[in-house]
Amino acid sequence: MKKIFLFTSLIVSQSALFAQNNNFKKDSIAIAKMQGYVLENSVCYEDLRYLCKKIGNRISGSEAAAKAVEWGKQALESAGADKVYLQPVMVPHWVRGKEIFSVKTEQGQNLALHPLGLGNAIGTNGLGIDAQIIEVKDAIELEQLGVENINGKIVYFSHAWNQKLANPFDEYGNSVYYRWAGPSLAAKYGAVACIIKSAGAAYDNFAHTGSMRYDTLYKKIPAMALSYVEATELEKMIRAKEIVSATVNSTSHFEEEVLSYNVVGELYGSDLKDEIITVGGHLDSWDVGEGAHDDGAGCVQSIEVIRMMKKMGIKPRRTVRCVLFMNEENGLRGGTEYARLARLEKEKHTCAIETDAGGFSPRGFTMSVSKEQREKVKTWRNLFMPLGVYNFDEEGGGADIGPLRKNLNTPLMELSPDPQRYFDLHHTENDVFEQVSRRELSMGALAMAAMVYMISEYGL
Amino acid sequence: MKKIFLFTSLIVSQSALFAQNNNFKKDSIAIAKMQGYVLENSVCYEDLRYLCKKIGNRISGSEAAAKAVEWGKQALESAGADKVYLQPVMVPHWVRGKEIFSVKTEQGQNLALHPLGLGNAIGTNGLGIDAQIIEVKDAIELEQLGVENINGKIVYFSHAWNQKLANPFDEYGNSVYYRWAGPSLAAKYGAVACIIKSAGAAYDNFAHTGSMRYDTLYKKIPAMALSYVEATELEKMIRAKEIVSATVNSTSHFEEEVLSYNVVGELYGSDLKDEIITVGGHLDSWDVGEGAHDDGAGCVQSIEVIRMMKKMGIKPRRTVRCVLFMNEENGLRGGTEYARLARLEKEKHTCAIETDAGGFSPRGFTMSVSKEQREKVKTWRNLFMPLGVYNFDEEGGGADIGPLRKNLNTPLMELSPDPQRYFDLHHTENDVFEQVSRRELSMGALAMAAMVYMISEYGL
Repeated sequence: MKKIFLFTSLIVSQSALFAQNNNFKKDSIAIAKMQGYVLENSVCYEDLRYLCKKIGNRISGSEAAAKAVEWGKQALESAGADKVYLQPVMVPHWVRGKEIFSVKTEQGQNLALHPLGLGNAIGTNGLGIDAQIIEVKDAIELEQLGVENINGKIVYFSHAWNQKLANPFDEYGNSVYYRWAGPSLAAKYGAVACIIKSAGAAYDNFAHTGSMRYDTLYKKIPAMALSYVEATELEKMIRAKEIVSATVNSTSHFEEEVLSYNVVGELYGSDLKDEIITVGGHLDSWDVGEGAHDDGAGCVQSIEVIRMMKKMGIKPRRTVRCVLFMNEENGLRGGTEYARLARLEKEKHTCAIETDAGGFSPRGFTMSVSKEQREKVKTWRNLFMPLGVYNFDEEGGGADIGPLRKNLNTPLMELSPDPQRYFDLHHTENDVFEQVSRRELSMGALAMAAMVYMISEYGL
Repeated sequence: MKKIFLFTSLIVSQSALFAQNNNFKKDSIAIAKMQGYVLENSVCYEDLRYLCKKIGNRISGSEAAAKAVEWGKQALESAGADKVYLQPVMVPHWVRGKEIFSVKTEQGQNLALHPLGLGNAIGTNGLGIDAQIIEVKDAIELEQLGVENINGKIVYFSHAWNQKLANPFDEYGNSVYYRWAGPSLAAKYGAVACIIKSAGAAYDNFAHTGSMRYDTLYKKIPAMALSYVEATELEKMIRAKEIVSATVNSTSHFEEEVLSYNVVGELYGSDLKDEIITVGGHLDSWDVGEGAHDDGAGCVQSIEVIRMMKKMGIKPRRTVRCVLFMNEENGLRGGTEYARLARLEKEKHTCAIETDAGGFSPRGFTMSVSKEQREKVKTWRNLFMPLGVYNFDEEGGGADIGPLRKNLNTPLMELSPDPQRYFDLHHTENDVFEQVSRRELSMGALAMAAMVYMISEYGL
C-alpha cells in the first residue's frame, strides 16, 4: 500500500507541477508588471506622506478621522476603483486630556514623569489621586500580595518585555495582557490607579498607549503607561524606598459616539464578479505620532493594490474590494459592521487579506485557512520567493477581518512583514512617516497585490 | 537503475535526517543560548553607538581610522577573545578637500550645487575648470557622441538607478559602473571633468560617494556625484538649455600612504584548533556620515560572535577568528594582506564569513562554495528558519574575503540582510547610528554566530 500510495502522490505532484508551469509565465508577467509600477512610481509612499503630514494621527471620532475618511475616498477614486462608497458606523470617541503622574520623594521633591494614558481609560476629572505606589511584577505576585497590601494604593506593573524571542509578535501577546487587563486586575484588590511599563520593545523614552478594557465586576480606575526609560527609573526609586507617595491626575474621557465610516473601493471582477476578495487596513490610529506604520501603511498598501491592477490593465476575475476600516484601535466597530453587512447581504467572500503589522519589508502571509487552502497557496511559492516572501506556515489573520471568519468562515490572511522594528514604534509619538522606507512599503504593497491577483485567478 | 538509485538516495537522506535530528536538539540549545544573550543584552548595539558617535567616519589613513583600530582591539579584548593582535598594512590616504560644482545660467546667475567628490578622484588644486556641460545617458551614447561632441566639456552621466528590481543589490552592479569607470570613459573622449548621478536608490538630497578608478590610458579628470534631487534639477536645466557653462573645483587629493592595521581577535578551537573560521567586516568607512551600516554594523556583529560564544560558554571546535579589515572602501589592502599572510603561513581556512551589506534584519547567506558544501548548509535550514534566515541559494561572498578564495580556495559566505534600505544610505551623510535598529543588528549578529557555530561543529 505504501508503495502504491507513494506512486500516486508522485503522479499528483507531477501533474500539479505541470499545471503550475503552464500558468507560471503568465502569472510572473502580471506580477512583474505590478512590481515595475509600484517600485518605480511609489504612489503609495506619497499617499502615506499626505495622510501622516497633512492629516496626522486620527483616533476614532476625531476631526482628523473624518478628514481621513474623505482622503481615503478620494485616494480610492484616483486609484481607479470602479465604485467607491462609505459604510456608516457609530464609533466611540475617547479624548485624551491632560495626564499627570508624579512621585513625591523622601526629600520632599515632586518629580513629574511623562505618562501616556491607556486608550479607553477613565480620567480623574482633573482631581489628583494621591496614594502610595507599589510595584507588582505580574498577576501571580498581585494575587500573593492580596487586598491587604494593594488596597488604596497605586499599582505599578513592572512586567518587562521579553527581548529574547526572535519574533517580537510572539511576545506582544504576553506583554499586552497588563495593558489590556492590568487596571481591572489591580482594581480587584482595591488599587486606586494603575501604571504599567509600556508594552513595547525599545529601550527609549517613548511611552506606548493602546486599548485597555475594564472588567465590569470591578471599579474603573485610571491607567497610564511609562516609557521603558522612565519605568526603569521609577522601579529603581520604588526598590530603594525613595518614594513616599504618587499622584495620578487625568482629564481623559469619552465623549458622545460619532458617526463615522469604513471607506470601500471596488475593482470589479470579470467572470466571477460576485466573489469578493477583501484587502484592507485600518484608517483610524492612536492619538499620538502619525499612525504611519499602524496603520497608515496598511491603508496606502491596500489602495495601491487597486491602483496597480488598474494602471497595469490587470483585470481580476473576482472583485477586489479595498476596505479602510474605521475604529480598529479601540472598538473594532468597522470590522464588525463590515462582517455584519456581508452576512446580511449574503455576499460570497473568497478571502480577506489584512495588512496591519507595519510597512516593513514583506516576508510572508499568516493565515486562518484550511490545510488544503494553505497547501494551495504554497504551490505559488516560486512566484513570491523573488519578492523575498517565503513564509506561509504561520497561523494568523487580522483584527478587522476576524469577524468575517466568524460570520462567514471566510479564509483570512495577513501580510507578515519583517517584525523587528514594529514594537519599537507601535502606539507611540515615534510612529511617524520618517520611520517608513519607500521601498519596504512598496514591496509590501506588491506582495499584497500578487496574493490578491493569484487568489483572484485561482480561488482558494 | 533509476529505481535502485531512488532507493539508495532515500536511504541516504533518511540517515542524514537521523543524523540531523540527533544533533538538532544540541544545536538548537546552543543557538537559543546565544539568541537570549544577544537580544537581551545587545552589547553590539552599544559598541556601534561608540564607534559612530565617539569615533565617527574613518577613512583609511585618517586619525579616526587609527582610533578605530585602538577601539577594535579593546572591544575584542573585552569580548573575551583568547588572543588579539594587529596585522600591519600600508593604506592609501585620500583626503577630501573643498569641492565645488556650479552652473552659470543664461540669465547670468551662478548656481552652486552640493557635489560629493568620488573617492580616489583627483582635485584641481583649487583652480576652477570652466567648461560647457553635456548630458550623457550611458556608455553607448557617449561613444555615439564621440570626441567631436565631448572634447573639452564636462560630462554629466544621467544614468538612473533602476528602481524596478526587487533586490537593489542586483541594480548596484549596473549603476556603480558609472561611478567606478565613468570618469575615464569620459576622459577617453576628451572630457575635462565628470559629474554623475549618485549610485543610490533614494529620491533624496544625499549624494553618494564611493570608489572610482582611473584607466591609465587616459587623462585623470575630477569626478563628483550629485544627489538624486540635484541631479534631476541639473538634468532639467541642461535639457531646457538654461546652462551656459559649469565650474568644477576641488582640493581633494592623496597624501602619503599610512601604516594601518587589520584588527584580529581569536577564540581558540578545541580539538580542531588549527582550522580557522574567519568572520569579519571592515573597520574603515567613507569620510561622510558615520559608517554605521557600512560597515560599523559588520564590525560589531563580528565582535559579537566572539562575545556570544565566550559569554555562553560555547567552546568552538575550530578556531573562530574575527577580523576587522582595514581599507575595504578604497584599496582592499587589508583583505589582500590577510590572504597573503594566510597563504604564507599555510593556514587551514575552513570558511570565511563576511558581513558588509548593512545591519538589517537577516534573511540568508550568499555563498561562493561547492555544490556539496551548499547542500550541507541547507541541511541546517531548520535551525535558521526561526531566525527568519531562509535563503541559502544565492551566489556571493564579500570583498575583504575575496582574496582568500583566490589564494586558498576558501569557501566564502556573506550575511544577506534585508536589502531594501541599504542603497538609500550607503556612502552618504545619512549612514548614521540612528538608521540602525537594535533588534535587526542583533539578529544579524545571531545569524552570523549560528553559522560560525555550525561550521565549527561540522565543517563544510
